[in-house]
Amino acid sequence: KFTHWLGKERISTLLFIPTLGILIALMGILCDFLLMELGTLRDFVTSRHNSHVIPTDGTTPTPNSSIADKYDLVEGIVFVGYSVFFALISVCCISFISPYAVGSGIPEMKSIMSGINLSRVLGFKTLVSKIVGMVCASAAGLTIGRTGPFMHASAIISQMLMNLKVFGAIKKNQIVRYQMLICALTSGVVANFGAPIGGLLFAIEVTATTAVMGNLWKGFLCATTTAIIFFLSRSTFSKGNFHSVYEFEFVPKEYGVADLITFVGIGIITGLIGAFFVFIYEKLVRFRLRYPILKQSRIILVLVVSLFSAIITYSAGPLCRVSLPTAMKQFLGQNEPKPFLFEQDQTPYYKYLNLLVFIVVKLILTAFNIVLPIPGGAITPFIVTGAALGRLFGEILKDHFDSQAIEPAGFAAIASAGLVSGTIRNISPSIFVLELTGQLSLLVPILICSITSTAVGNFFNRPLFDTALKIQG
Amino acid sequence: KFTHWLGKERISTLLFIPTLGILIALMGILCDFLLMELGTLRDFVTSRHNSHVIPTDGTTPTPNSSIADKYDLVEGIVFVGYSVFFALISVCCISFISPYAVGSGIPEMKSIMSGINLSRVLGFKTLVSKIVGMVCASAAGLTIGRTGPFMHASAIISQMLMNLKVFGAIKKNQIVRYQMLICALTSGVVANFGAPIGGLLFAIEVTATTAVMGNLWKGFLCATTTAIIFFLSRSTFSKGNFHSVYEFEFVPKEYGVADLITFVGIGIITGLIGAFFVFIYEKLVRFRLRYPILKQSRIILVLVVSLFSAIITYSAGPLCRVSLPTAMKQFLGQNEPKPFLFEQDQTPYYKYLNLLVFIVVKLILTAFNIVLPIPGGAITPFIVTGAALGRLFGEILKDHFDSQAIEPAGFAAIASAGLVSGTIRNISPSIFVLELTGQLSLLVPILICSITSTAVGNFFNRPLFDTALKIQG
Repeated sequence: KFTHWLGKERISTLLFIPTLGILIALMGILCDFLLMELGTLRDFVTSRHNSHVIPTDGTTPTPNSSIADKYDLVEGIVFVGYSVFFALISVCCISFISPYAVGSGIPEMKSIMSGINLSRVLGFKTLVSKIVGMVCASAAGLTIGRTGPFMHASAIISQMLMNLKVFGAIKKNQIVRYQMLICALTSGVVANFGAPIGGLLFAIEVTATTAVMGNLWKGFLCATTTAIIFFLSRSTFSKGNFHSVYEFEFVPKEYGVADLITFVGIGIITGLIGAFFVFIYEKLVRFRLRYPILKQSRIILVLVVSLFSAIITYSAGPLCRVSLPTAMKQFLGQNEPKPFLFEQDQTPYYKYLNLLVFIVVKLILTAFNIVLPIPGGAITPFIVTGAALGRLFGEILKDHFDSQAIEPAGFAAIASAGLVSGTIRNISPSIFVLELTGQLSLLVPILICSITSTAVGNFFNRPLFDTALKIQG
Repeated sequence: KFTHWLGKERISTLLFIPTLGILIALMGILCDFLLMELGTLRDFVTSRHNSHVIPTDGTTPTPNSSIADKYDLVEGIVFVGYSVFFALISVCCISFISPYAVGSGIPEMKSIMSGINLSRVLGFKTLVSKIVGMVCASAAGLTIGRTGPFMHASAIISQMLMNLKVFGAIKKNQIVRYQMLICALTSGVVANFGAPIGGLLFAIEVTATTAVMGNLWKGFLCATTTAIIFFLSRSTFSKGNFHSVYEFEFVPKEYGVADLITFVGIGIITGLIGAFFVFIYEKLVRFRLRYPILKQSRIILVLVVSLFSAIITYSAGPLCRVSLPTAMKQFLGQNEPKPFLFEQDQTPYYKYLNLLVFIVVKLILTAFNIVLPIPGGAITPFIVTGAALGRLFGEILKDHFDSQAIEPAGFAAIASAGLVSGTIRNISPSIFVLELTGQLSLLVPILICSITSTAVGNFFNRPLFDTALKIQG
């Protein structure tokens, strides 16, 4: 009787979606847990004297004000060694487990949803390679994101779940299969950002070639299941059930037409940066493909690039050394001075310089790191770098002009959405940023900025993922 | 040279979308203005002595505590007469201008997007009939919404704009035409609720038969243009640029697993009510179609039903007499006692009774009013009735159990989303409710409740709009 019920596609779908959502959430928790442990390990290894501990949570830092305190040769060497070691593990996953796990996986998802059969891309080996490689690459401190890899891994989980005999009814129906893949992509975003609405929109946008959702009900069900586990697990690891991921105490004031022009301005700036980034990215990928030695000897390439990345990261100062989520917390935090961002006894120009260094270093590192043959996405780096850009803009405005309706932290959220839209030319990731802040008060500014930067970016070149697909052929 | 540029589809689309967004926003402002004036007129007509003024904004009401103060025969007769008069104007629009303007228009939009050619539904006469009819029906105090009519009217505006010679390039391309219709539907929602994300999701859901958006960029551009005008106009008419539509001072506390079960419970309750409502609706429509006299003599039908509706509305007390948005403001407001909702010198049971009467009266009136041959949607009545239901639930919980993570106003938002999902079985209108509150803190509860109520509702019968389409054949 039970198997007969399961044979009905409707019933098995209803069972399939929450199972999928829970599995994806567990995957996210596993990755978070591993990264937390590896972060502790790094702190333990690098901290010779306790005053040099880089706190992973950013709550109780030691003020490092003098140059001698900030840089330390032995610490630096250990830092670089640790980075290179994990970067090598990451590339080994690609070389020895599955080469299909490389990159963000979003272009591959686009191909699959447009009907191209890439069964190996959705294989178990790819899943292992993707998760292990991504965790190691993040632990290595490379400037890569987890959004794309999470989406790819989720799609694989969905595919594997479909292969179970219990869910045979789903596998037979091609449309339901695609729907389940979209559900999985949505949950992948939720497991990373806790952003169900943005996640569903992004999954629809990415897979738009065959939009087969019909009713969004299934997508939301899967997203909500993941979101529940995601937020519950956060309360175990840190504080706050069902809070927004970042503390965002921005009290919205009224903004008028003049402010709208500012948002368009930020959109133009971030759009130009985004277009320039895509240009550089294309050049880098083409450069790598031109020389067979760079194409074949993956491990040496990763060794060299991760070595330089780690050296640059270390020498760029404490702000650049922290993980991307920690940095994001700084930019969206309202109460300054924050530990790494602003030091009390410094002039405002130090603050600007610190942010400017972060922006430039992270943009360059992102360009070099996302072309590496390791699993890693581009969305999170853009979100964080954009936030730094907005924070810089906001701080300058605040210091030199008096009355601003938007606080610097608010500008950080706006420019964050702008930069990510300027490169990948989708609006939905800006909804992630909105959901990260837990408030809707910035919806209109964020939409204005994202739309402008998408338009500006599209004027110059194609979106990042389309460029990647075009180069791969 | 200029006409050559316009001939390019891309350029003309870029010009078309903001124009469309602005026009739709202006339509919304026009309707708001007319309704405000008609509300003032009603206050002027009904208030013989000043103490009986029903404030339209709910800010400075007079306490009406005794029964003699609340009911007044002359006032009642004027109230009913005013209602019937405007209801008759509304039905005359249908009878003498265009019969295609009847109802919400969402089923018609579904048909058009699935490729059925209904050119008269998108004609200018229908637009006039829809807007005038809808404004009059709202002014008459009938329990109908504006979401569907706004979406329909927006689609007509888009169609008319396409017929202009300047935008000839758009009309030629069928896919772009559909995209522009989706943009218009999105903006229609924004002009009503100021909810761009929910609007776009709803437009996609409603028109899912041919999801041709590709990139959501166009939809967001149109929605944002409308949102800017919408929020700017609000600051002219009332206070607060770019604030959420309703004041919602709900401070989110942490909620745990036990609360999640409560949300599922609300979802089940609202889903059952929703299913029951659809059942009653179907019976009513079939009853009306069975008797030729009810089918043909539209005006007498509207006369009778609006007469009874107005009498019931008047006798149900002050809370039922206010407009739907004003009532919504009461349910989402945190600071009680609010004027109509709770009177200070009464027992809590009076409060429950007041809410219960509102819920029952509005559900019955919604069922009778949306089957009338007048323009009017169903979404807003469900949102408001659901809010009353949640408020009742929340108040009971608050009075009888001590520690609640969610305030009564929060439960109002959750049940509001639940009831609208329980009847029309789409998740996106619950995003409207979320956007109305201006906060994302209730996202997970609202999604849980909506998904549950959609599932429960779908178990019993088909969605409201599908039922409407099925009956029409």
